[in-house]
Amino acid sequence: MPELRKDPVIGRWVIISTERALRPHDYKVEEEKKEVDLSKCPFEPGNEKMTPPEIMAYRKPGTKKDEEGWWIRVVPNKYPALRIEGELNKRGVGMYDMMNGIGAHEVVIETPNHFEEMHKMPEKQIEEVLWAWRDRMLDLRRDKRFKYILIFKNKGSQAGASLEHPHSQIIALPIVPVRVKEELHGSKLYYDYKDRCVFCDILNQELGERERLVEENGEFVSFVPFAPRFPFEIWILPKKHSCDYTEITRAGVASLSRVLKRTLQRLTLALNDPPYNLIIHTSPVDELNLPYYHWHMEIMPRLTKVAGFEWGTGFYINPTKPEDAAMYLREIEL
Amino acid sequence: MPELRKDPVIGRWVIISTERALRPHDYKVEEEKKEVDLSKCPFEPGNEKMTPPEIMAYRKPGTKKDEEGWWIRVVPNKYPALRIEGELNKRGVGMYDMMNGIGAHEVVIETPNHFEEMHKMPEKQIEEVLWAWRDRMLDLRRDKRFKYILIFKNKGSQAGASLEHPHSQIIALPIVPVRVKEELHGSKLYYDYKDRCVFCDILNQELGERERLVEENGEFVSFVPFAPRFPFEIWILPKKHSCDYTEITRAGVASLSRVLKRTLQRLTLALNDPPYNLIIHTSPVDELNLPYYHWHMEIMPRLTKVAGFEWGTGFYINPTKPEDAAMYLREIEL
Repeated sequence: MPELRKDPVIGRWVIISTERALRPHDYKVEEEKKEVDLSKCPFEPGNEKMTPPEIMAYRKPGTKKDEEGWWIRVVPNKYPALRIEGELNKRGVGMYDMMNGIGAHEVVIETPNHFEEMHKMPEKQIEEVLWAWRDRMLDLRRDKRFKYILIFKNKGSQAGASLEHPHSQIIALPIVPVRVKEELHGSKLYYDYKDRCVFCDILNQELGERERLVEENGEFVSFVPFAPRFPFEIWILPKKHSCDYTEITRAGVASLSRVLKRTLQRLTLALNDPPYNLIIHTSPVDELNLPYYHWHMEIMPRLTKVAGFEWGTGFYINPTKPEDAAMYLREIEL
Repeated sequence: MPELRKDPVIGRWVIISTERALRPHDYKVEEEKKEVDLSKCPFEPGNEKMTPPEIMAYRKPGTKKDEEGWWIRVVPNKYPALRIEGELNKRGVGMYDMMNGIGAHEVVIETPNHFEEMHKMPEKQIEEVLWAWRDRMLDLRRDKRFKYILIFKNKGSQAGASLEHPHSQIIALPIVPVRVKEELHGSKLYYDYKDRCVFCDILNQELGERERLVEENGEFVSFVPFAPRFPFEIWILPKKHSCDYTEITRAGVASLSRVLKRTLQRLTLALNDPPYNLIIHTSPVDELNLPYYHWHMEIMPRLTKVAGFEWGTGFYINPTKPEDAAMYLREIEL
């Protein structure tokens, strides 16, 4: 019997389909063609002139901006979805509403090593990526035009990555996006009723039941959520309540780095290096210290096609039971 | 300068990106491999035994159930996402909520002709498809467990179709899906403020400005919406207010058939036979006669990849300006 399960944060129902109960090897991951010409990769050391001038870098003392010697480098996206210069100019067009596409769109080059995807990086390097995300978030927040800062990573061309060199992206938006608003609204409703953070309650139940857990250490937990949209979707949460990613400490990123690396290793081995999207949901720029919201990471492998039913309903059909997905992931030997 | 535009119904913002302003031929549509073995197609006349027994068919007088002689045939989905038998059994699991996956999942075989996709069908045949959708909706509504009935069509494997033979699907759900709830909520807010249907106002503005129109006749309009998620997204609305698809008359389906066929022909020619999803949004089973909701069809060509940014925000980046998309479509000679 298929199950309908409800996401406790935003109230989205998903169908856990048992008719075609798919195991890891039932998902066909297309091998990416890897004809690599490093001389053409704009994210290679030595090719710094192929990107717009760098915004920030972690680099060896004595090395120069836009030259080699960096281990993390942040540059503007060459094809930005939004423009940094200008005014919002909010206006109506008859009954419709619009504004100028003002925002920031940056790329975090996560390593000088073209072939070192995040699951292969030393933990220390992942820490540096996590810290760079924090640094950029803190800096972008100072621009009062921006209401939300989204950090995300597309890995693999099927997940939307147009370049292979390991990188993530940051977009600063002039409005709080609808998906985040839904989470804020849902978690506020829960808090008003229960006086507790819904994410803290999720953590409690997951750490008690343990059947959806993937990785855990003192500060962080990764698990398959109760009502995941996608097969092998994974969330990572800090155990301690915090609505704001930038509150993370140096010790925190070290801890998160361990959980993230081991989670990505399991995912990569279980599903043959699948394409995935990774996002961070944190509180909006103007709403810090929220008792009801809890920052988190969502990792969504791209294994199934989203079709008419999903677009028509916002309802998802997931052919792998979350408890099974977590078990497959835990069984991987690292 | 990119633009941020807001959908007036649900308030979703989209980015109309001008950085990479893509024209029709910039979208690469992968040719589908067409190694057709009709003897293996379960939707071919003569292969009726390869599907579960038919629920309904339009067939020649004197021909028998589950044999040849039909021009429209409706069968249960062989791999249903939901099960028709059983009770919902709504229950809690700790803090989580779930219920049994009760529902109906049917397939409408739209023609006996394997190669006659909807844009190639005679208008009369499209009318029959539209009428079959109505018939099934009216029948499924009688089951009081069902709260919403979604009609959708996935055309092409990139849009999620697993079989090539022209078909659409019907899913009856025990809850109103979140996407429809958002539309109902948004259009109710608008109505409470303006005392008018937001979709009727959209029609008024589109018919006045005309720059996003694609097709129009006495009863129906097809146009590119002001804030489309996807390039070349198209909506079709009845000019006369109606929240319920099943209110359509025989004359109405004839009129809709003309607009739909011409719209799909334009889309097919402009974009080299793209994969697409088509859905109908109509009012929930228990909420008929709504003054604020307006049934409509949404056609979404699958031309761009949905990636981390979209999943993280519910925000879409559309690289073709809606006014340009509509112009390209109108310029096609039929």
